[in-house]
Amino acid sequence: MKNFDINEDPHRRYNPLINEWVLVSPHRSKRPWQGQNETVTSDALPEYDPTCYLCPGNVRANGEVNPTYENAFVFENDFAALKQEEIAFEENKNETFFKAQPERGISRVVCFSPKHNLTLPEMPVVAIEDIIRTWQKEYTDLGNVDYINHVQIFENKGSVMGCSNPHPHGQIWAQSSLPTEVEKTQNNLKAYYDKHQSNLLQDYLKEELKLNERIVSENDYFVALVPFWAIWPYETMVISKRHFGKITDFTEAETTAFATILKQLTTKYDNLFETSFPYSSGIHQSPTDGESHPEWQFHMHFYPPLLRSATVKKFMVGYEMMGESQRDITPEKSASILKEQSEVHYKNKS
Amino acid sequence: MKNFDINEDPHRRYNPLINEWVLVSPHRSKRPWQGQNETVTSDALPEYDPTCYLCPGNVRANGEVNPTYENAFVFENDFAALKQEEIAFEENKNETFFKAQPERGISRVVCFSPKHNLTLPEMPVVAIEDIIRTWQKEYTDLGNVDYINHVQIFENKGSVMGCSNPHPHGQIWAQSSLPTEVEKTQNNLKAYYDKHQSNLLQDYLKEELKLNERIVSENDYFVALVPFWAIWPYETMVISKRHFGKITDFTEAETTAFATILKQLTTKYDNLFETSFPYSSGIHQSPTDGESHPEWQFHMHFYPPLLRSATVKKFMVGYEMMGESQRDITPEKSASILKEQSEVHYKNKS
Ligand SMILES: O=P(O)(O)O[C@H]1O[C@H](CO)[C@@H](O)[C@H](O)[C@H]1O
Ligand SMILES: O=P(O)(O)O[C@H]1O[C@H](CO)[C@@H](O)[C@H](O)[C@H]1O
Repeated sequence: MKNFDINEDPHRRYNPLINEWVLVSPHRSKRPWQGQNETVTSDALPEYDPTCYLCPGNVRANGEVNPTYENAFVFENDFAALKQEEIAFEENKNETFFKAQPERGISRVVCFSPKHNLTLPEMPVVAIEDIIRTWQKEYTDLGNVDYINHVQIFENKGSVMGCSNPHPHGQIWAQSSLPTEVEKTQNNLKAYYDKHQSNLLQDYLKEELKLNERIVSENDYFVALVPFWAIWPYETMVISKRHFGKITDFTEAETTAFATILKQLTTKYDNLFETSFPYSSGIHQSPTDGESHPEWQFHMHFYPPLLRSATVKKFMVGYEMMGESQRDITPEKSASILKEQSEVHYKNKS
Repeated sequence: MKNFDINEDPHRRYNPLINEWVLVSPHRSKRPWQGQNETVTSDALPEYDPTCYLCPGNVRANGEVNPTYENAFVFENDFAALKQEEIAFEENKNETFFKAQPERGISRVVCFSPKHNLTLPEMPVVAIEDIIRTWQKEYTDLGNVDYINHVQIFENKGSVMGCSNPHPHGQIWAQSSLPTEVEKTQNNLKAYYDKHQSNLLQDYLKEELKLNERIVSENDYFVALVPFWAIWPYETMVISKRHFGKITDFTEAETTAFATILKQLTTKYDNLFETSFPYSSGIHQSPTDGESHPEWQFHMHFYPPLLRSATVKKFMVGYEMMGESQRDITPEKSASILKEQSEVHYKNKS
C-alpha cells in the first residue's frame, strides 16, 4: 500500500480556529478550465472621478458632500445593513424553529485614500499607517458605544468580490452580537486557552516559524503565512509575533511593521497574476464587550478568489456548499509561489 | 421605543440545522447597484454540440467515448477531487495544528439528458423520474462500497456557479468521512432527536405548513419552502411530508411527486428573471455507514446566487466571510415572489 504523501494524495486538513475541515486534492490542479472567465477591470483609472461618490468633494447618495480629505476618511454607510435604533423585543426562550432577535449596529465606510486609483500595495507605508490609526480610532470609538460588542473591520477589493466602487475603501460593521464566524473562533481560542493557559495562534505561529514551509513574509513584529488549513487558493493570515488581542495594543513600531507587511503582501498578490488582485480581507480581534479576553489574538485574514490567472477564480459551490471547502493547490505550494513574488510592484518595474 | 417588526428591522435568525445565525437587513433591499453584472449565457444552445464532452457519442478528456445514451448517464469524473486508492497512514493523535488525514472517495458525473440544451425545468416529469432512479442506484452502489460512508449528490447550474459545461449534469462525490456541513447537520438532528424522540425537520415542516408564510410549492408528498433561516436571496429546501432518511426510501408515488416538485420549483426559478436560473443544489440524507440514523430526514437544498435580476447576484464576501451570512430581502418576501411565479415555463408561454 502506498504511504500517505501530503503533497500528492487527496486528504482533509483540520482548522482548529473554527473546528472545520477542508478537502485538499493536490493532484487536481492539472484540470483544464472551460468555465467562466472573470473580466479584468482596466487599470487606467483617473486619480479623481467626478462620478465617484467616494472621491473628495463629491456628493453621496444621501446628498451629503464629502470633505476634501487628504488621508483616510470615514463616514456612516448610506445603505447600512445595521441600524442604531433601539428596538423593543421580548424573547421567547422556547422557540426552536423561528428564533429571531433584533440586531443593533453601526456601519461605516473607510476611504483609504483621496486618490481614486490608489490601492494598498501602491500606497506609501506612511499612508497605510494612517489607515491603521483610523482603524484603531474606530475600534475604540465604536467599541465604546454601550450596545456594541463587536467591531468587524474588512475590505472587499475588486468587482469579483462584490465591490461596487474601485475607489480604495473598506468597511466597518459594528454590532451587539458576536457574528457566527467570530463566535466559532472565540470558542476554539477559549477552549485552547483554558486547556493550555496559552494562545492557540501564538503557539501555532511558533511551529510555523520553525517549519518555514508556509511563510510568505516576515518582519520583526508580524508574519504573513498561508495557514495549514487555508481554503482559498492564495489565502493568507497575518499574525503578530507578540501576543495581544486588538489593534489598539499596537506599539508605534508595530504600526509601521503592520503597514509594511500589508504593503508587501498585497504587492506580492498584485505581482502574482500582474493584476489588481481581488480579495476580501478582515481583522479578527477581541470583542468590545468590556471583558478581558486573554484567549484572543489579533490576526487578519485575506481570502482571495483567484486560482489560475487574473481571470480564472476558484468556485466555492456545489460540493463546497453542501459538503465542505475544497482546494486543489496545496497551501505549501501557494506559500512558496507567493514568497518568490517580488516586493516591487509590477507597475513600477522598469 | 419601537416594537420589533421582523419585516422591517435588522435582525438575526437562527438556523437550528447547523447552529449558525444569519443577519437579515430587510430595509437594505432598496440599495442601488453599481457593481459587477453577470453575463447572461445566450439560450440558443444546440440540442447536440460536437465539442461537448458530455454529449452522446463524443470523446471525453481521457479518450473514452460516451455511449449514445438516451436517459440519465453516469461516468467516473475524469478530474476527480477524490481517489479510490487506499493510502497507508498513521495518525498522530496529539497533533493540534497540523492535523491531516488521507481521504478516499469516488466522484461521478451524472448527465441528466442526452440533449445538450435541456435543463430540469424543461424536461418532462418522466425524465426527471429517471434522474431520481439514477441517484437512487448511485446512492445504493456507492454506499455499498466498504469505505464509503457518505454520498453527496449535487448540481452546479450556470457558469456563475462554476459550471464549466451547460450540458445538463450533476455530480456525486462519495467518500469515507462525513463532510463538515453534513456533520454539523447530523449533530443538530441527533441532539434534537435525542431530546424529543422526533425529527427536527418533520416538526419544523408541520409548523411551516400551519403558518403558510414561506411555502413555495406543495403536493401530497413534498413541500418546497424558503427556510426561515435562508441565507441566499431565493434559497429553498424541499422536504418530504413523510419521515424517512434517504432517497432509496421513496415509494413510486414519492418518486413522481419529487420529480414534479423539482420541475415546478426550477420552472418558477427560471420564470423569476426569465433566465436559466443558476444555483447549486444538493441532497442531504443518511450517511451510508451501515448504522441506522433515525435522526436523519431526506431533504434537498437549492442555493441560487441571483438577487435582483438575471445579472445581479448576491455577493457573500467581506462581512459574510469574516462575520456571518447576510441577506437583504426577507425569506417571507422571497417565498411569496416565488410562489406567485407560473408553473408554465416562460419559453413555452404563447
Ligand atoms: O467539478 P467541476 O464541475 O469541474 O467544478 C465545479 O464543481 C466543483 C464541486 O462543487 C468545485 O470544486 C469547482 O470549484 C467547480 O468549478
Ligand atoms: O456594502 P457594499 O460594498 O455595497 O456590498 C458588498 O459588501 C457587503 C459586506 O460584505 C455585502 O453584504 C454585499 O453583498 C457586497 O456587495
